[in-house]
Amino acid sequence: MLRKKDSYVVAVVGATGMVGHEMVEILQERKFPVKELRLFASERTAGETVDFQDRSLTVKLLDREAFEGVDLALFSAGEEVSRAYAPVAASSGAVVIDNSAEWRMKPDVPLVVPEVNPDAALSHHGIIANPNCSTIQMVVALKPLHDAARIRRIVVSSYQSVSGTGKEAMDELMEQTRALLSFRDVVPRVYPFQIAFNLLPQIGLFDEQGSSTEEAKLANETRKILGEDGIRIAATTVRVPVFRCHSESVNIETEKKLSANEARAILATAPGVILYDDPQRRIYPTPVDASGKDAVYVGRVREDTSVESGLNLWIVADNLRKGAALNAIQIAERLLQAAP
Amino acid sequence: MLRKKDSYVVAVVGATGMVGHEMVEILQERKFPVKELRLFASERTAGETVDFQDRSLTVKLLDREAFEGVDLALFSAGEEVSRAYAPVAASSGAVVIDNSAEWRMKPDVPLVVPEVNPDAALSHHGIIANPNCSTIQMVVALKPLHDAARIRRIVVSSYQSVSGTGKEAMDELMEQTRALLSFRDVVPRVYPFQIAFNLLPQIGLFDEQGSSTEEAKLANETRKILGEDGIRIAATTVRVPVFRCHSESVNIETEKKLSANEARAILATAPGVILYDDPQRRIYPTPVDASGKDAVYVGRVREDTSVESGLNLWIVADNLRKGAALNAIQIAERLLQAAP
Repeated sequence: MLRKKDSYVVAVVGATGMVGHEMVEILQERKFPVKELRLFASERTAGETVDFQDRSLTVKLLDREAFEGVDLALFSAGEEVSRAYAPVAASSGAVVIDNSAEWRMKPDVPLVVPEVNPDAALSHHGIIANPNCSTIQMVVALKPLHDAARIRRIVVSSYQSVSGTGKEAMDELMEQTRALLSFRDVVPRVYPFQIAFNLLPQIGLFDEQGSSTEEAKLANETRKILGEDGIRIAATTVRVPVFRCHSESVNIETEKKLSANEARAILATAPGVILYDDPQRRIYPTPVDASGKDAVYVGRVREDTSVESGLNLWIVADNLRKGAALNAIQIAERLLQAAP
Repeated sequence: MLRKKDSYVVAVVGATGMVGHEMVEILQERKFPVKELRLFASERTAGETVDFQDRSLTVKLLDREAFEGVDLALFSAGEEVSRAYAPVAASSGAVVIDNSAEWRMKPDVPLVVPEVNPDAALSHHGIIANPNCSTIQMVVALKPLHDAARIRRIVVSSYQSVSGTGKEAMDELMEQTRALLSFRDVVPRVYPFQIAFNLLPQIGLFDEQGSSTEEAKLANETRKILGEDGIRIAATTVRVPVFRCHSESVNIETEKKLSANEARAILATAPGVILYDDPQRRIYPTPVDASGKDAVYVGRVREDTSVESGLNLWIVADNLRKGAALNAIQIAERLLQAAP
């Protein structure tokens, strides 16, 4: 439980990673009331320094004593770290907002996107899960349409940037691109195959039915966040040679028919959404446009005439910001707002 | 009408373009019985030389006398050239196989993919249309599934390479990539926005409902080639920073239920298809794998549990070969086979 205070002791676990870095930036940008910021990482990067406000903070090695006196712990250090340390933080009295997949589907852990289910955050037992990047941007765009017309089925194909994998993947795309432009051979390290000028229809590992973990996340988390077990979802997730921002081609079938204009009117005022949709004037979102931005950009809104009531949408957002760090801090802001 | 002969006078119109170049290569590779090869282009590139077998041929300027004595004319020089010159070639007695969109949807012009509707080629009136690249690879993969289970609806999102636009677009991707890696600014020329490390959800122009010409082609041509006006299609087409090969995430709904294993068994023996599908062993097609290859590669075959009978597929093929030049020459081979 976060109690009302002037300012809070905040810990960031995984502070040297891509998302951890964004978390520190966003705490500062949004003037989150930080009394003290404690940064943690593994042995590999502990000792590095990170700038916050006018100070330079040294990243400490994570241990079981790290959370003493911490009010809010933002985790983005992978599932193993979250599995081991989120309960430690929670039992020290901190509220954990965890960016890994570890706790997301646990029935008593809220999975929260503040534009969609803000009040779910308030019923936590110490741990709140931050959804997967590809899920967050999709539900922000779909929630207002679901409220208006009830979504029955979603077919989504994703175009996901390498920053979703981490810094090493961004380096790999850069290095492979340089190598290919110099006619040198490419040696994949992070991804199983060449990613530069290529596409990989694999994000995560595959189950026996042939779906990837990313595809399962997109389906299961969407149902949990919308609170609708009955929504049917077919997801295909693909890694593309883009540094930042995930894009999604989303086809929905709704109970009530919405025209493209009605859908646009709804999206134009939806929280967290920027409608960017006038294709004849070349207005549609691209990953380069959305990089570093907070909103979920929606364009290419079209009626799908192949079903009685359907819509096609093109959804783009910064996977490190709204897809991860920003959403986590928005959850924290919701807790502050409701703090007794 | 192509009559049986030992060898043929073949013209390639647009011989200096990407597809024209592939046509010349493939005529040679497949030992097409060429008595004489005449190469044509516009003023911009006429005068260039092209190697064919052991000779170096000079590309001539296209004019109305170009087709005298020509048996077979392969066009890949854009819609305007096809509109103006395909009828000239046909009335000179040549059979035209046209790679532009100009004639594809005319009711009396056959639109042919030899693995799908080979005999349609035989009912031509001088002009046979070669379908759009993104259509060809999709129908090659879907035809055997349609025969087995009747496809009712297709939802497709494409990931299309820049070579579909032409050589200038490949140069643009290369130049923009170099510029960005050197922290220089990018100035788009061929595409409306940066394509390097970006995605553009625009291929062609947009109609008033917000669909692009590429999306309309994919839907209309698929129905014409399969001979099924009733198949409902929702298409979203996207340009990706890949040099060669188009990829498609395809979701189908069928009348009869097919399990993923049944679908795989059908695809494993389907003409023109290579089933490349064992994701747990990291076997799935990528654009880099399919570059320079003739087959349509299909992987990620999964049952779609969001409908009663549905499948997801990931389809990759070389857009310059099977998507254009190879398909055109396979049509010519079908004509030869049937020549009286």
